Amino acid sequence: MRIFIAGVDGYLGWSLAQHLAARGHEVAGADVFLRRQWVEEMGSWSAVPIADMKERLQGFRQRHGRELRFWEGDLRQYGVVEEIFKEFQPDAIAHLGECPSAPYSMVDVHHTVFVQTNNIISTLNFLYAMRDIRPEAHLLKLGTMGEYGTPPIDIPEGFFEVEFRGRRAHLSFPRQAGSWYHWSKVHGSNNIAFACKIWGLRSTDVMQGVVFGTRIDEMENDPRLLTRLDFDQAFGTVVNRYCCQAVINHPLTPFGRGHQIRGFLPLRDSMQCLTLALENPPKVGEYRVFNQLEETYGVTDLALKVQKVAGQLGLDVEVQNLENPRQELEEHYYKVDHQHLLNLGYKPTHDVEAEMRIMLKDLMRCSDRIEAKKNALIPDVRWDGTRKKVHFLESVAVAASV
Amino acid sequence: MRIFIAGVDGYLGWSLAQHLAARGHEVAGADVFLRRQWVEEMGSWSAVPIADMKERLQGFRQRHGRELRFWEGDLRQYGVVEEIFKEFQPDAIAHLGECPSAPYSMVDVHHTVFVQTNNIISTLNFLYAMRDIRPEAHLLKLGTMGEYGTPPIDIPEGFFEVEFRGRRAHLSFPRQAGSWYHWSKVHGSNNIAFACKIWGLRSTDVMQGVVFGTRIDEMENDPRLLTRLDFDQAFGTVVNRYCCQAVINHPLTPFGRGHQIRGFLPLRDSMQCLTLALENPPKVGEYRVFNQLEETYGVTDLALKVQKVAGQLGLDVEVQNLENPRQELEEHYYKVDHQHLLNLGYKPTHDVEAEMRIMLKDLMRCSDRIEAKKNALIPDVRWDGTRKKVHFLESVAVAASV
Repeated sequence: MRIFIAGVDGYLGWSLAQHLAARGHEVAGADVFLRRQWVEEMGSWSAVPIADMKERLQGFRQRHGRELRFWEGDLRQYGVVEEIFKEFQPDAIAHLGECPSAPYSMVDVHHTVFVQTNNIISTLNFLYAMRDIRPEAHLLKLGTMGEYGTPPIDIPEGFFEVEFRGRRAHLSFPRQAGSWYHWSKVHGSNNIAFACKIWGLRSTDVMQGVVFGTRIDEMENDPRLLTRLDFDQAFGTVVNRYCCQAVINHPLTPFGRGHQIRGFLPLRDSMQCLTLALENPPKVGEYRVFNQLEETYGVTDLALKVQKVAGQLGLDVEVQNLENPRQELEEHYYKVDHQHLLNLGYKPTHDVEAEMRIMLKDLMRCSDRIEAKKNALIPDVRWDGTRKKVHFLESVAVAASV
Repeated sequence: MRIFIAGVDGYLGWSLAQHLAARGHEVAGADVFLRRQWVEEMGSWSAVPIADMKERLQGFRQRHGRELRFWEGDLRQYGVVEEIFKEFQPDAIAHLGECPSAPYSMVDVHHTVFVQTNNIISTLNFLYAMRDIRPEAHLLKLGTMGEYGTPPIDIPEGFFEVEFRGRRAHLSFPRQAGSWYHWSKVHGSNNIAFACKIWGLRSTDVMQGVVFGTRIDEMENDPRLLTRLDFDQAFGTVVNRYCCQAVINHPLTPFGRGHQIRGFLPLRDSMQCLTLALENPPKVGEYRVFNQLEETYGVTDLALKVQKVAGQLGLDVEVQNLENPRQELEEHYYKVDHQHLLNLGYKPTHDVEAEMRIMLKDLMRCSDRIEAKKNALIPDVRWDGTRKKVHFLESVAVAASV
């Protein structure tokens, strides 16, 4: 298949390019390197040093014996998307080219507007390019489990049967996102479902859990092939951040009471799932939603796991809760359907501690880089609009009763 | 109260300014005159001639004995919104400043992106300005009944109690909008609800039915005070378009089978309802949704009513269905709660035919202007992405069995 990856310079994008190439697909990509700028703006950098795109492409060619066709361009410009579609004629588009940060979207009005418009416009451009140039192409769109929030009922995969006043309907499951970023993903989901309905396009909308991991096997130890790993407050996801904290003997920092439950999956599982979705496209006209996660965990439970694995590697770290900069339920019901990908053959890794061991070993080699930017580990972007570092809480970490 | 009207040059905005002033409120407004440009772009103009803003403001001053403070500025620029808030310190914001056209949003990718970003950004700017400058102000946001689409179950006012797998939740009612414009309103609703939740803002989100009418009493016959009345395919709503068709002996044109049912209300009822919402604000932190309509009608039934009233005025017009340029259900269940405004004291006009008589008399004086742009009456913007005039259907108009 000819697969176009939007955001190919990113954490998932660069990994997916390699995973797909190793399976024999023809891969192209675009990026305008905004992620590198955003992380710099947050006072940080990737813990794992990453090469520039020219070197990355050379490494890719050597490893896979083929070119990755690359466009440096802004996907908010329809002309850029149109040119790519006309030249590459993709069978599938993996849209990983959005701004993926809740805190970044909460900084101020300009960041909110940027994140929402950036994410909406690129998706609209893809939908139009599909309609007019590749109507049978498959849009694999990265959404987030955060679209659903934490409702007091089970979370189905996108849709549910509801009875109301004696009549029944099959409806989209109501979303309760928790940041401007998460809402941008809801807006995108709504737009995609509508395009599929009126134009007969096909799309898989991936409600992805929180990804963690430093590598997939295809990267081996080629520094040009390694993907970025962020640990700052805005772009560092929770387990990645814990592992970066552990290697510099910084406390692991669940937010608030720390009993928040989320879906998680290792980077290698994310690649496995995205590939399954790409290789098993929906029917023409179908809009389908996959909840993409390996399992749900409490954020303190994961901190305790990182602490345990770190201990085995000789790293002695505390778990110490931080004041929660977000507004979110810290104790809640959480039960998520995630059967669609299992039905397609997804084999979850399950051994979270083994993955953490790999991560910690990788990151121990990067501890100087983390140490140099450790100020970025502690959040100051607060959901109430103020910007002030959060403080450590007195309370002792307690595992969530999942 | 000090009430700021975004889009004060528009069909609703100019009417609301006068209605509120007559009730003793202090009114300010902003506009950048995009509506005038959009209608011109669609090859049309207002059937009722309208004055420029300078003359309008003079007329307003003479009629109400007070100034309407006016800003000519683009509400997508946060600096403009911030300045207005700092200077006027509004108690309430009536946000009527969005692009309100489904067909306009369906023209091409550039129109889609424009409508969605224009509508989202202005609303985000208001939410931030409220948070930072007027946190107790009330945002009255114009949404649309079109956010809900036509689900096979009753439509509540924004939220419903749902049971799923034996657990219950109070959730936002799933939206099924039918155009990029209607989705922009859903995106806005989602953003507003979130801001109320995290920042304790208050807002009334109005799911308004289709408005019709040429005037409210406050305008008398001062040409500076009359509001615009559009009849083109993009900005002319259905009853307004029928009345314009009638006065030039053009067939009245329901789309498709013509059994679509929608909520409707006269312009004077819209003013009554918006004012009730403004004068009875929600609690601090409350996000509430009002379904704002007088009654539901089939679009053919309304055509037959216009035909009947026109006949009484000596106008002999046919009802002739047009090929439907939209993708929508032409036969569907439709039952809508609309109790909240009645509870606040809304007294619906109910005499739709009397309103049509007023409209037809007003528009008979404007028939030359409608005749001059009658090409704009027949749609060519199609939901499938093509642009081609629709043709008349053979079938005879039949009233929907409501």
